[in-house]
Amino acid sequence: MLLPTSADIAAAARRLQGHAAKTPVLTSRTANELHNAEVFFKCENFQRVGAFKFRGAFNALSQFNEYQRKRGAIAFSTGNHAQAIALSARILGMPAVIVMPSDAPAPKVAATKGYGGEVHFYDRFKDDREQISRRLIEERGLTLVPPFDHFDVIAGQGTAALELFAEVGGLDFLLVPLGGGGLLSGSLLAAKGMCPSCLVYGVEPEAGNDGQQSVRSGVLTSIPTPRTIADGAQTQRLGVHNFEIIRNSVAGVITVPDADLVSAMRFFAERMKLIVEPTGCLGFAGIRHLDVPIKNKRVGVILTGGNIDMTHFSQWFGA
Amino acid sequence: MLLPTSADIAAAARRLQGHAAKTPVLTSRTANELHNAEVFFKCENFQRVGAFKFRGAFNALSQFNEYQRKRGAIAFSTGNHAQAIALSARILGMPAVIVMPSDAPAPKVAATKGYGGEVHFYDRFKDDREQISRRLIEERGLTLVPPFDHFDVIAGQGTAALELFAEVGGLDFLLVPLGGGGLLSGSLLAAKGMCPSCLVYGVEPEAGNDGQQSVRSGVLTSIPTPRTIADGAQTQRLGVHNFEIIRNSVAGVITVPDADLVSAMRFFAERMKLIVEPTGCLGFAGIRHLDVPIKNKRVGVILTGGNIDMTHFSQWFGA
Repeated sequence: MLLPTSADIAAAARRLQGHAAKTPVLTSRTANELHNAEVFFKCENFQRVGAFKFRGAFNALSQFNEYQRKRGAIAFSTGNHAQAIALSARILGMPAVIVMPSDAPAPKVAATKGYGGEVHFYDRFKDDREQISRRLIEERGLTLVPPFDHFDVIAGQGTAALELFAEVGGLDFLLVPLGGGGLLSGSLLAAKGMCPSCLVYGVEPEAGNDGQQSVRSGVLTSIPTPRTIADGAQTQRLGVHNFEIIRNSVAGVITVPDADLVSAMRFFAERMKLIVEPTGCLGFAGIRHLDVPIKNKRVGVILTGGNIDMTHFSQWFGA
Repeated sequence: MLLPTSADIAAAARRLQGHAAKTPVLTSRTANELHNAEVFFKCENFQRVGAFKFRGAFNALSQFNEYQRKRGAIAFSTGNHAQAIALSARILGMPAVIVMPSDAPAPKVAATKGYGGEVHFYDRFKDDREQISRRLIEERGLTLVPPFDHFDVIAGQGTAALELFAEVGGLDFLLVPLGGGGLLSGSLLAAKGMCPSCLVYGVEPEAGNDGQQSVRSGVLTSIPTPRTIADGAQTQRLGVHNFEIIRNSVAGVITVPDADLVSAMRFFAERMKLIVEPTGCLGFAGIRHLDVPIKNKRVGVILTGGNIDMTHFSQWFGA
C-alpha cells in the first residue's frame, strides 16, 4: 500500500504556507503543576474554519490537476471537514459540493454556505447517500475528498505536529485525538521526521474504542456509531491507510469518558480562556489515563478544534 | 502633580520581563471583514491571573524597599487586582493582605487564597472598610497598593500597549476599556512613546459614563456605582492621576450598552475561540460606536481579561 512519509508532511507544510494559520502553542502553569510535567498545547482551535481539518483539505485540493480544479471537489460531512473543503475550494477558485442530510444543524449548513460551499441535501431515511454522490460525481466530474482515509489529507493533517516540534523542540510524549485517524497518522509521520523518540498516543472517547481494539488485535475493527459528546470521534472505524500507519508506530491508544471531556473543557475555558470543542479535549483529558509516568517530561497535546454552538456549550456548565 | 512618562512604561516592561506573559496578538479575518479594517487584539486574557492587572501590581510591588517587602502589601479588591497583588507578592516573596467583604463570591476568595494571599474579611453592613484597613496598615506596616490611582500601577498597565505597538507597528486607533483609568492612562503614555499619531480611545459601559463626563467637562466627575455586566468598569470615578493623563491626550471616550458586550463575548467565543470577560469586550464593542471612519485603518484593541465563572458565562448564552 502506498503511504505518505515524513517528506510528504514537509511538502504539505510548504503548500499550506500563507494559507493555513501557523497556530500558537500555549502553555499553562496550572496544567504543568497539575501533571508535574511540561505541557505544550498546539491550538488548532485557532486554525482557519476553527479546526485542523483545513490543513488536510487544502493540501488535497491544492494538488488537483487542471481538470479536477475546473470541475471541483465533493465531500460528505456535516462537521469541520465540510467547512474545510468549502473554504479551501473558495481559496483555490474551484467549486465545492457538500452532501449533507436535510436535518443537519442549521448553523453547520450556514457556516458551510458561508465559506462558499454548495450544499446538496439528502433525506437520511429515504435516500441512499452513496448513490446520490455517485450520481453527482459522474454527472459533474467532481473529485471526492474523504475526511481521513486519503494520502494528501493525512499529509496535510501532519503539519500541525510538524509545527509543534519545530516550535518547541523535542517532546517525550504527544497526545492526539483519534477519530478516523487522519490527524494521528499524520502526527506519527511528522514525529518520525522531527523527533523519532517521541511516544505518540491516540486518544479516543471511551464509548468508541474501535481504534484501541484495532491496534491491540492488529485487525481493523468496526463498531456501531458510538454515543459520545466528542462528535469528531464518532467514527465506526479507522481509515485503511490511517490504520496501516498507526499500527506500525503508535505507542498506544487510550480512552477517556465523556465526563473528563467536560472537565477539560471547563479547564480550558476557566484557566486558559480557550474554547475547545469536546473532541479537541481528548488529548489533554488523556494525560491522566496514560499508563506510563510523565513526571518532569515534555508532553505535546493537540487541541483539534473549537467549533461549538454557544447554546450547546452553555448546557454543560449551566447552574 | 508628578506623573509617569513613556520612559516609565519602558522601565516597567524591563521589570516585568520573565514574570508577566508576553501575551499574543491575535487577528480575525471575520472581524476585519465586519469592520473593513485591520484589527489587532492584544490578548490580556492570557496574562497571569487572567487579566492585565498583573502588570501594574507586579511593577508596583517590585519597587518596594527592604522594609516594605518585609511587611508586605495590602489591597482592597474582590476582582482581578486582588489576585494580581496576591500572586505578585508570592513571586517577590512578601506577604499580601487582601481586604474583601465577607459576602464576596467564593471562587474569587478561593482564587486569591490560591495565589497565596491572606484574605481579611469585613462586614459590609457593620464595618468601616477604611478604618479596618487603616488599622491593618498601622499595626502591620503594610503598604497599600490601589488598583489604578498609582504611579507604578499606571506604568505597569502601559506595558500591554507597549508590547502591542512593538509587535504590530503603527496603529491608527487604539481602543481601551475604561474603569478607573489605569489601563487607559498607561496606554496613552505608551502610545506617546511608540506611536504618537495613534488616536487612543477609552470605552466605558453606557450605564457608567463618568469618564466621558469628566473628559467632556474637564472636571473629575463621580457617579453612583453603575449597573453593568462589565464589573471591572463599575468604578464611580477615574483616579486623580489617571484623569490628569487622560484629559491631556485621550482622543475621546465612547460608551457601549451591555447588550453589545454580550454580542462581543459571543463573537470571541464562537469565532475566535476566546473567553473574554464582559469588561474585556468593551474595546471591540466600541468600534462601531466610534464617530470617525476606520475603513482600511489599523485598529488595536486590548482584551483586558478572561475571568468569568462558567455558570455565569453560560447564563448569557443559554437556550
